[in-house]
Amino acid sequence: MAAADMKVATFCVVTGASKGLGQAVAINLAEIVGDGSLIVITARGEDGLNETKKKIGSAAPHVTVKIVAGDIAGPYSDELHKRICDVPSPGSFKHAMIIHNAGSLGDVSKLTSELSDPKVITDYYGLNVSSVLCLNSQFFSATGSIVRRTVVNITSLCALQPFKSWGLYCGGKAARDMIFKVLAQEQPAVRVLSYAPGPLQTGMVEEAAKKTADPDIRAFFVGLSKNRTALDPDVSAKKMVKLLQDNKFESGSHIDFYD
Amino acid sequence: MAAADMKVATFCVVTGASKGLGQAVAINLAEIVGDGSLIVITARGEDGLNETKKKIGSAAPHVTVKIVAGDIAGPYSDELHKRICDVPSPGSFKHAMIIHNAGSLGDVSKLTSELSDPKVITDYYGLNVSSVLCLNSQFFSATGSIVRRTVVNITSLCALQPFKSWGLYCGGKAARDMIFKVLAQEQPAVRVLSYAPGPLQTGMVEEAAKKTADPDIRAFFVGLSKNRTALDPDVSAKKMVKLLQDNKFESGSHIDFYD
Repeated sequence: MAAADMKVATFCVVTGASKGLGQAVAINLAEIVGDGSLIVITARGEDGLNETKKKIGSAAPHVTVKIVAGDIAGPYSDELHKRICDVPSPGSFKHAMIIHNAGSLGDVSKLTSELSDPKVITDYYGLNVSSVLCLNSQFFSATGSIVRRTVVNITSLCALQPFKSWGLYCGGKAARDMIFKVLAQEQPAVRVLSYAPGPLQTGMVEEAAKKTADPDIRAFFVGLSKNRTALDPDVSAKKMVKLLQDNKFESGSHIDFYD
Repeated sequence: MAAADMKVATFCVVTGASKGLGQAVAINLAEIVGDGSLIVITARGEDGLNETKKKIGSAAPHVTVKIVAGDIAGPYSDELHKRICDVPSPGSFKHAMIIHNAGSLGDVSKLTSELSDPKVITDYYGLNVSSVLCLNSQFFSATGSIVRRTVVNITSLCALQPFKSWGLYCGGKAARDMIFKVLAQEQPAVRVLSYAPGPLQTGMVEEAAKKTADPDIRAFFVGLSKNRTALDPDVSAKKMVKLLQDNKFESGSHIDFYD
């Protein structure tokens, strides 16, 4: 595949964009897309979204930013997904992108053999798999007239490797990787990337360090948190943007920050 | 690992045991376990379970069979899981086994980009992932005093390879494979196998032949159905039993009928 010209009018959705990787991805993408681009940033936290919007305003004043605050897995998610993917005058865009970044760690305080509450499991798959599929189908239906489309699934090493007491997270990431592989097969004209950003210096590392039941895995995250050796989300976001620009990845494949 | 002595008093649960592979697995396991064994067969269809029980009665009269009819993902599943895993006098068993065979194909009439109904997706993960985790944790808690335990996840090639318009099935099977890999890491004393039985001459092949949206994948299943070239469930069940007896698999690994 030839390098991708990102400097075109782009309609772009980034989920979980109020902080961490989602915020960094939204800013880094804004910096490279062309005039006339619209970036829709969504998350539950409106304060964080306002901060992301402000940062994009400084870094990429040529881009319009739209904030849609809400829970993509909540009871009125269908309505919310429509607002997120509402494309004003689709004819004005040359490229449509969606970055499925929102997600949760799940209950890591229990071993897999202790996961016994169907509500906890259902809610986990509701946010991490079902809402992604539903938002993705809304994106496809809203951007049908835009010939060039890119879908990014933010994944993890945990989609490929088992982490003790991370049964929910590993299973959810494995499901997502496979779903986006199927999507890539079904839609050969769409570029699909599953990107594993590496262990990031975000709230998730702190949560993992505090709550992980397995002592080995917990110690790993305590170390990351203590020594601040986890990756800067901005560094990882830049790598993801470069992968999209270079455009050499096989559609549907899983690529890690460290690859 | 040395070959496994299966001819011991075994407490064994088989889900989806009213027909197809589940029925064949229940019968084949009954034939090799020792005196004093109890096989619990569960599924929604009581008539099929009665048939399975009758067949076990002929093939393996030394085994006690208990029928528990119900929906393992239904609203009272917690109560049902307890009845399924109710072990009478645990001290009398030398080996406890559970075969997670129940599952569904999901909606294959839509492409992944058309999956837009959260209820359909939630119900799919409810049956194929959440109920498996919950029943599995019930099994672990009920068999805690039985030193030797084996857990089998019935999986599919679809856990590893994308099948167009099978986004739900592929994603669910990938999630299950990974969850059981995590379980194997967490429980080194337990033998965990993900077994892909191959394309079987069961109702699922007929369903796939009728409903699959993608023409290539549909044609494959139409061919299997028409020429009756899919595998006999009994042949595949025997292969699974042999894998358990030979006991050479790496715990947590995915092994296909054709491997």
